Amino acid sequence: MSQTDPADLTAALIRCPSVTPDEGGALVLLKGLLEEAGFTCTRVDKGGIANLYARWGEKRHAKTFGFNGHTDVVPIGNPDDWSADPFGAEIRDGVMFGRGATDMKSGVAAFAAAAVDFVRDTPPDGAIVLAITGDEEGDAQDGTIALLDWMAAEDERMSVCLVGEPTCPTEMGEMIKIGRRGSMSAWFTVTGRQGHSAYPHRALNPLPAMARLMDRLASHELDQGTEHFDASTLAVVTIDTGNPATNVIPAQTRATVNIRFNDSHSGAALGDWLREEAAAVDAAFGTSTELTVKISGESFLTPPGPLSDLVSQAVEAETGRTPELSTTGGTSDARFVKDHCPVVEFGLVGKTMHQVDECVPVEQIHQLKAIYARILRDYFSG
Amino acid sequence: MSQTDPADLTAALIRCPSVTPDEGGALVLLKGLLEEAGFTCTRVDKGGIANLYARWGEKRHAKTFGFNGHTDVVPIGNPDDWSADPFGAEIRDGVMFGRGATDMKSGVAAFAAAAVDFVRDTPPDGAIVLAITGDEEGDAQDGTIALLDWMAAEDERMSVCLVGEPTCPTEMGEMIKIGRRGSMSAWFTVTGRQGHSAYPHRALNPLPAMARLMDRLASHELDQGTEHFDASTLAVVTIDTGNPATNVIPAQTRATVNIRFNDSHSGAALGDWLREEAAAVDAAFGTSTELTVKISGESFLTPPGPLSDLVSQAVEAETGRTPELSTTGGTSDARFVKDHCPVVEFGLVGKTMHQVDECVPVEQIHQLKAIYARILRDYFSG
Ligand SMILES: [Zn+2]
Ligand SMILES: [Zn+2]
Repeated sequence: MSQTDPADLTAALIRCPSVTPDEGGALVLLKGLLEEAGFTCTRVDKGGIANLYARWGEKRHAKTFGFNGHTDVVPIGNPDDWSADPFGAEIRDGVMFGRGATDMKSGVAAFAAAAVDFVRDTPPDGAIVLAITGDEEGDAQDGTIALLDWMAAEDERMSVCLVGEPTCPTEMGEMIKIGRRGSMSAWFTVTGRQGHSAYPHRALNPLPAMARLMDRLASHELDQGTEHFDASTLAVVTIDTGNPATNVIPAQTRATVNIRFNDSHSGAALGDWLREEAAAVDAAFGTSTELTVKISGESFLTPPGPLSDLVSQAVEAETGRTPELSTTGGTSDARFVKDHCPVVEFGLVGKTMHQVDECVPVEQIHQLKAIYARILRDYFSG
Repeated sequence: MSQTDPADLTAALIRCPSVTPDEGGALVLLKGLLEEAGFTCTRVDKGGIANLYARWGEKRHAKTFGFNGHTDVVPIGNPDDWSADPFGAEIRDGVMFGRGATDMKSGVAAFAAAAVDFVRDTPPDGAIVLAITGDEEGDAQDGTIALLDWMAAEDERMSVCLVGEPTCPTEMGEMIKIGRRGSMSAWFTVTGRQGHSAYPHRALNPLPAMARLMDRLASHELDQGTEHFDASTLAVVTIDTGNPATNVIPAQTRATVNIRFNDSHSGAALGDWLREEAAAVDAAFGTSTELTVKISGESFLTPPGPLSDLVSQAVEAETGRTPELSTTGGTSDARFVKDHCPVVEFGLVGKTMHQVDECVPVEQIHQLKAIYARILRDYFSG
């Protein structure tokens, strides 16, 4: 039987202008394709965001292979900066251009094409689930979280999950992600007492306290890395006061830090550490520091094992490369899925993601479908 | 003969709306009064600013008593916040209200009244000079500096100079200023390399370098004070970055410091120190820091001696208080006059200067005239 072309499907998805939070026709298109192939599809919309849940096979089958991805894309910026229509899917010299070409309409298309062909040609004893969100590039609260909540309420399950985000820095097949560092931000407001620069002893300048605090935080070594993780990092991203007058000592100043942390920390413990550091500086300077902490995601790891072996072997068979098992990079929706089942991430080369002239070699879309197809075959034959 | 009323003259000056750079009629009024009394008057206008030079007696007389003051005033702010017309000179319970009531139309009026009566009643063997500017509250470049430049060009001289700014913190007669600390500001821009918060090793964050630099500067003891001066102080007045994104490490951040320094430093040496500190931090962090320094005024001192004795004795005779010889406070035009001749400052209680409902007890204007009159008598009889 004729095979589903993942490049054609990628092009069709690129032509859907699904900039977060717009559905843009992308999930409607996928739903049609998957229902045609025998998947039971449910729209799990929440807060103006469209999400799609699709299952082939028996609910809660002990062997349920899950796929998580997103069809929403980041804004295109200035269209005049693009050399091609950002929603046109134009192919030049074998390379397809468009917003979402790598992040990650191609990933969704490659998996959907592989799954549709697989269940038609070699129906497995098991189930395949696609949980596709339209809110990965937004604040992600009404996307994969909503899908997982709905799954819990409906007693739907995945045994394992593959997230199809781009994971390869430069060459196809070089990296699988088996976890991510945690991410958190903290907003500091240091308050002193306003005064005249000529009489600093009558004022209480919050800026020396802020400088000391930020120096202490930035120069502290959080750890030296762990077995599967790089060292945790802390970045002071901004300090702001907004005082234009050289003869005035301001009453207040603010700063923000961002921490990427590995499995030797929890967000809560780091929050406690930040509060202790602020209290120590307040005690030394007489200032009073307020602190708001937001944990975007804890660190997580699916330790090397059956799932990463399955994906690695498929990547190696199709590309000839042994992928590195990495925990680098920013956050993805895998941080939500990890509470549900073992999860790893594998996808295309991410170099052009979120950029002008985002693009993907057409040949790599086919290669990605072949890898995903091999993963499905090996999973259900194993 | 009838004596010139310094309170009436203050009221007439307050009614001239001479907010910098407007002359507002104030110098025209003074010129009329002084010419009537035999003073030779010259308008020394520059850059849209009006200034008045008035001399009674022989040019370059070896005994020339000089007075420096200003008739310009700071803006009134919101007129609705005032309980009286800011340009009305209303008297309530013996207190006169209006912008310039203390800073320093009353000082100019008290000296002019004293001088006019003195040269009429007891013409001295000597000269009296008034150098009155309309640009003390502005950037001061076209005011007292222009008057002193004009005096040098015209071979005009003062042997000593009294600046009539308010000098008393709370009680009439408690403080004479015999010098001022210097003042300078420095603007720092620390440049690194922008990047993603998740990959700080690929970026070069300028903020830890800025925090270290500001901590070093703020915690450095410049000195412990000198015989006539308080300790020098450094205030970090602002640090700004303007980066709203927690996932971005910014390329640049800026800060401003203000230094008030005594006679153990020069502005140039402090500028060198700031550059050395920045270079040390750049060497440690790999950043590159640019630095702009502006010296508003060097420190200066008229050591206790004949001029401060003259003023002290007059203050004590009229008020019963022994004034402190102080070098505290912000800058005044005395910082320009000190290059011309010995200079001290004495005037009213400055508590309400630059504030809403600026005001002066009428009785204190008369007391100030009496002090200035006694200074003139003692100077020319000495
Ligand atoms: Zn993505
Ligand atoms: Zn003044």
